[in-house]
Amino acid sequence: MCRFLIFKGRDPILLAHLLTRPEHSIINQSYDSRLRIDNRRPINGDGFGVGYYTPEADPELGDGPCVFCATTPAWNNLNLARLAEKTKSSMVFAHVRASTAGVLSETNCHPFTFHSLMFMHNGQIANFHRMKRKLASHMKDEYFLYVQGGTDSEWAFALFLDSLDKLGVDPSKPAGVNGFGHEMIRNAILLTIQYIKDWSKQCSEGDTDNEEPSLLNFAVTDGHSVIVTRYITSRTEEAASLHFSTGSKFIEYEPGQYKMERRDRRQDVILVASEPLTFERSDWVTVPTNSILTINNQTVLLHPIMDEFYQTDPSVPRSSNFAASRGLVSPIVEPQASTNVNLPPLEREGRRRLSITV
Amino acid sequence: MCRFLIFKGRDPILLAHLLTRPEHSIINQSYDSRLRIDNRRPINGDGFGVGYYTPEADPELGDGPCVFCATTPAWNNLNLARLAEKTKSSMVFAHVRASTAGVLSETNCHPFTFHSLMFMHNGQIANFHRMKRKLASHMKDEYFLYVQGGTDSEWAFALFLDSLDKLGVDPSKPAGVNGFGHEMIRNAILLTIQYIKDWSKQCSEGDTDNEEPSLLNFAVTDGHSVIVTRYITSRTEEAASLHFSTGSKFIEYEPGQYKMERRDRRQDVILVASEPLTFERSDWVTVPTNSILTINNQTVLLHPIMDEFYQTDPSVPRSSNFAASRGLVSPIVEPQASTNVNLPPLEREGRRRLSITV
Amino acid sequence: MCRFLIFKGRDPILLAHLLTRPEHSIINQSYDSRLRIDNRRPINGDGFGVGYYTPEADPELGDGPCVFCATTPAWNNLNLARLAEKTKSSMVFAHVRASTAGVLSETNCHPFTFHSLMFMHNGQIANFHRMKRKLASHMKDEYFLYVQGGTDSEWAFALFLDSLDKLGVDPSKPAGVNGFGHEMIRNAILLTIQYIKDWSKQCSEGDTDNEEPSLLNFAVTDGHSVIVTRYITSRTEEAASLHFSTGSKFIEYEPGQYKMERRDRRQDVILVASEPLTFERSDWVTVPTNSILTINNQTVLLHPIMDEFYQTDPSVPRSSNFAASRGLVSPIVEPQASTNVNLPPLEREGRRRLSITV
Amino acid sequence: MCRFLIFKGRDPILLAHLLTRPEHSIINQSYDSRLRIDNRRPINGDGFGVGYYTPEADPELGDGPCVFCATTPAWNNLNLARLAEKTKSSMVFAHVRASTAGVLSETNCHPFTFHSLMFMHNGQIANFHRMKRKLASHMKDEYFLYVQGGTDSEWAFALFLDSLDKLGVDPSKPAGVNGFGHEMIRNAILLTIQYIKDWSKQCSEGDTDNEEPSLLNFAVTDGHSVIVTRYITSRTEEAASLHFSTGSKFIEYEPGQYKMERRDRRQDVILVASEPLTFERSDWVTVPTNSILTINNQTVLLHPIMDEFYQTDPSVPRSSNFAASRGLVSPIVEPQASTNVNLPPLEREGRRRLSITV
Repeated sequence: MCRFLIFKGRDPILLAHLLTRPEHSIINQSYDSRLRIDNRRPINGDGFGVGYYTPEADPELGDGPCVFCATTPAWNNLNLARLAEKTKSSMVFAHVRASTAGVLSETNCHPFTFHSLMFMHNGQIANFHRMKRKLASHMKDEYFLYVQGGTDSEWAFALFLDSLDKLGVDPSKPAGVNGFGHEMIRNAILLTIQYIKDWSKQCSEGDTDNEEPSLLNFAVTDGHSVIVTRYITSRTEEAASLHFSTGSKFIEYEPGQYKMERRDRRQDVILVASEPLTFERSDWVTVPTNSILTINNQTVLLHPIMDEFYQTDPSVPRSSNFAASRGLVSPIVEPQASTNVNLPPLEREGRRRLSITV
Repeated sequence: MCRFLIFKGRDPILLAHLLTRPEHSIINQSYDSRLRIDNRRPINGDGFGVGYYTPEADPELGDGPCVFCATTPAWNNLNLARLAEKTKSSMVFAHVRASTAGVLSETNCHPFTFHSLMFMHNGQIANFHRMKRKLASHMKDEYFLYVQGGTDSEWAFALFLDSLDKLGVDPSKPAGVNGFGHEMIRNAILLTIQYIKDWSKQCSEGDTDNEEPSLLNFAVTDGHSVIVTRYITSRTEEAASLHFSTGSKFIEYEPGQYKMERRDRRQDVILVASEPLTFERSDWVTVPTNSILTINNQTVLLHPIMDEFYQTDPSVPRSSNFAASRGLVSPIVEPQASTNVNLPPLEREGRRRLSITV
Repeated sequence: MCRFLIFKGRDPILLAHLLTRPEHSIINQSYDSRLRIDNRRPINGDGFGVGYYTPEADPELGDGPCVFCATTPAWNNLNLARLAEKTKSSMVFAHVRASTAGVLSETNCHPFTFHSLMFMHNGQIANFHRMKRKLASHMKDEYFLYVQGGTDSEWAFALFLDSLDKLGVDPSKPAGVNGFGHEMIRNAILLTIQYIKDWSKQCSEGDTDNEEPSLLNFAVTDGHSVIVTRYITSRTEEAASLHFSTGSKFIEYEPGQYKMERRDRRQDVILVASEPLTFERSDWVTVPTNSILTINNQTVLLHPIMDEFYQTDPSVPRSSNFAASRGLVSPIVEPQASTNVNLPPLEREGRRRLSITV
Repeated sequence: MCRFLIFKGRDPILLAHLLTRPEHSIINQSYDSRLRIDNRRPINGDGFGVGYYTPEADPELGDGPCVFCATTPAWNNLNLARLAEKTKSSMVFAHVRASTAGVLSETNCHPFTFHSLMFMHNGQIANFHRMKRKLASHMKDEYFLYVQGGTDSEWAFALFLDSLDKLGVDPSKPAGVNGFGHEMIRNAILLTIQYIKDWSKQCSEGDTDNEEPSLLNFAVTDGHSVIVTRYITSRTEEAASLHFSTGSKFIEYEPGQYKMERRDRRQDVILVASEPLTFERSDWVTVPTNSILTINNQTVLLHPIMDEFYQTDPSVPRSSNFAASRGLVSPIVEPQASTNVNLPPLEREGRRRLSITV
């Protein structure tokens, strides 16, 4: 039920171009169902978070991201609307949340941060309550004590930090001017998934009605590299949807309508999102289920995650039933399939958009 | 885009039976679109208010209602969930709000109260900003100063109070043990509508693109009588939808599913709502456009509002286009037209319902 | 820095008489320093909670308390102001919080509840982060999973529930019409303290700068009996302050000024509070450090907690330095020592009190 | 009861140096009474706002300020703590509010903005409710409709905008690259004060108990010039306190302790504040009652406001009783007069400062 968005640009972008102005931003999507399949309700009104790295290298600003989060619906948040118009960044994570677990609280808002690291999750760990104690006893004190809220996602981030630590890296101190390096982050996220799989198996042994898979779309960055997984602990089901788009510029071609401009095959702008943010089908590439996406120096890499849930035969289809039942599937629909395509969602129902001045 | 609900019972009802437990409560409707027409989005996540009179006549409790309101989505409000399980009342107003005007603020939450009076509005005053100054100069100081927020609805309530005053009644002092009497309240609400119509006409004179009608579904009570209008300043359009239901008891026949029990034609329970709260078509009577509903001593009366917008020929149909464009039409749909009818909306999408203990 | 208040009456009291109307309610205290020692700042603006049992035995209302809590300052909470004027109860817990640990979140607001049980804490567990993992591994799953927030107090409540369980009682099912019985609750709270002491000792072994004691003023009720401790893990320091008062009625003798009326030695009203709520010194009895107070059938009992921190020689004084450094000492001051005694705190500084109607 | 702060620098400053890190920032002052006179309570927990202009001239960022405001206490606001560590500006307005009028709502938070203009108020308009209708009928529609909330301060800003308009300037369009010019803004603010004085007089005529003066400390900027008044409608009372400080740098000489560095008489940094932010008495100049301060190109100018309330004889003292009764006097106290000077207010009472990462 959650949605997320990642922006990585050669140049900084005004946050409003990602969050508040596009008709299909994850915020406006959060009350517009058109890009979701029909029988899903579009509510993601339970909280919002955006994290961004400051564009210039200013030692006074530190190397960690700035996070703004709220427990009120994003579409009505005046502070967000104003900050988005006045803030630029070349590395942005944004997350709209529907509370599947954990009460409404700022401590439960994504993205989560730890020094230079930032993390978010789209999906859910199946039967998390059964493995929570294992998690608690597995981790080093500092990551166990890091957890402030009540979500599986925050625990997953703590586990990721502990995994980095177990791989010999201190997550509070990036190794160099380019951060931890994409290999290290990828390894730690794969280790995180491995632990969750193992404990999940141990906890469900013999429990026949415990066949629900975990949906583990994780995104993590150190401000330099970005790693995003599209993963499910199942051989037959699809993971929560994940797409990316690259181009030379993300432009507003008419009010509220954005598209990816692609000149010279440049990847100056990379967007990764739980669902397409534009109507151009060709703008978006679907990340295959159970693979891992890497952004390194404005280049996108895709690797399969080849474990027991990997399907070697590409002709064997996966069902989207489970992910759909969790509101986590977003097929690319044709714009003409919908009426009023050119009317932004608020206007279409006679609501006034937040006006920032006057 | 707003929804409201009125309960008047011979006996007090647990608020949870109205607000949080029914699958089709106005709160759960606020993220379930099934009872709305298809192309409307179901979001009413911008605030919530419930007002209720305490059941016993205890002088220490006073004669005014208690109001609880919130600017966070109702479906996620722990305080509301807990209060609803522990509070009973025989006279309840509830309102779910989508901000068409006025920022998100507790001062903009319905119902509004003034001593023993309580008021809410579903709809909007067309071109309100043009008549705001007229309103300000028309009213007595005490009602002008009553307004704290920025909504047309709160101004309409202040105008209603001023209208009561102009009819010779002090709205801060109910006349007797039975309140102001339903005639007086009805007259004041009709006078309120009259002023709005007049000023609307004056403000739009010559303005050809100012043909948008006002949607004036008002509900007001003094704790004894209830007056509800279904009204639009148009001869050809339908007003925002309004329905009522009467019976001997509002019962939960299976978890989350309620119906009106009707034995012996008793009207021990009266519900008035912007949309039907149960799937039984026969449970609900549609209030005709441009009429006024009165509840007096557990009896429902309907009167037409016979002015220039009244349509004497009942065979002349009104269009529901305008009200629908504002998200204010709620046809009674067949339950079988929808899948998963028996699954409450949160469970259907894998969300956990707020659990109050543990 | 927190404050709490307990009311147990033969008859229900309007919550406003406890919370919002008295000049010295814990809310108004929360920005009036007069009853605190001078160099303490009076801020308890970080959240508020009130829990109350509904007065009548109505099966539909259940046997658990209703809790209303907020993360905004209590003195500005319109919902609280309105509910307090419309709600009566004969068993009330109220808590004003300053965040010594745990971020501002409704999940961190006292009182905490579990079925019929309600709990709050004034003080703090020293070096809680060192024993958190022990707590996590000690408890049964259901109490481990009960914890939603990040405070030592919520963990202490979970430990109390687990202690009840270890004593052979299911905390989700009260034994009879009179609840668990005061002996059982007292034993469970003493066991809770014993665990915290033991783990604290284990965690601090050899750590010379870890001499800070824990302040464990706990209050717990099942709706029938009330148990309150005044306890510190030290032989030389005083615990956080605790007082009680009994009488026939808690009356407002002039606006905003309350006193305990005492006729015929009746104990129709029992108040327990972290600080005196009236200026009458003789109204209040100080609970000795390291003792446990029981309310059973409108009778107050005091027992010493005789462990290694008990001081058998009453002539040996304890220092109030540590508790004072935590803002947890509240000597009974003379009203004449202060100017403007008769002016309520808001009025004294020209602030308007929340007006509920108009 | 409110406090405000203005920063104007040749270079941008990290907001944390103004807002969250200094022991004597207006936020930390808001729960530390030392710099106030003794019998005042230090609460300003009712809301907070900060407005800043983005440092670079980037057309995409527009010429208006960014405003972040909150209705929860500033000292507990995680978003503020994080933004302050990641945001720099050379023109900052900050305001801490205690609600003397107007409910707690984001619409009532200062600073208020209108296109490139930003405004805040420390004080209150006496008997504002009596002149509200005059204000409403005096202003042009667009400024009348600008008002969203319920405070005298927001109305005062609308009146200022209308006054600019009456002086022939469109407040939505700055005249040139240097804004409106300090003369124009000063004239408009003086006209605003004139109107308030006149209406106040008209409204109080013959009302003998209506002798309470208005406290009109206004601050306004267009991003270039800053105008601040210290004004009271009285010949015998002092206005709310106002101070300024200039220097070459505002530096942290030890953790939490700041001072103004002054080399070469440069005015690279200008601070204006309702109370001194450092303990160095010589850092701060008191603005005389009934005068107007101008910042133009890093230069501070002071002019008297010579009207019927001007006291030509400087030897005639004003009383500070009225302003003190409103909590609006802040004498410069000696640091040695207080214990624990070097301990920041949160630490002194054992509270944890908000930790942003980990």
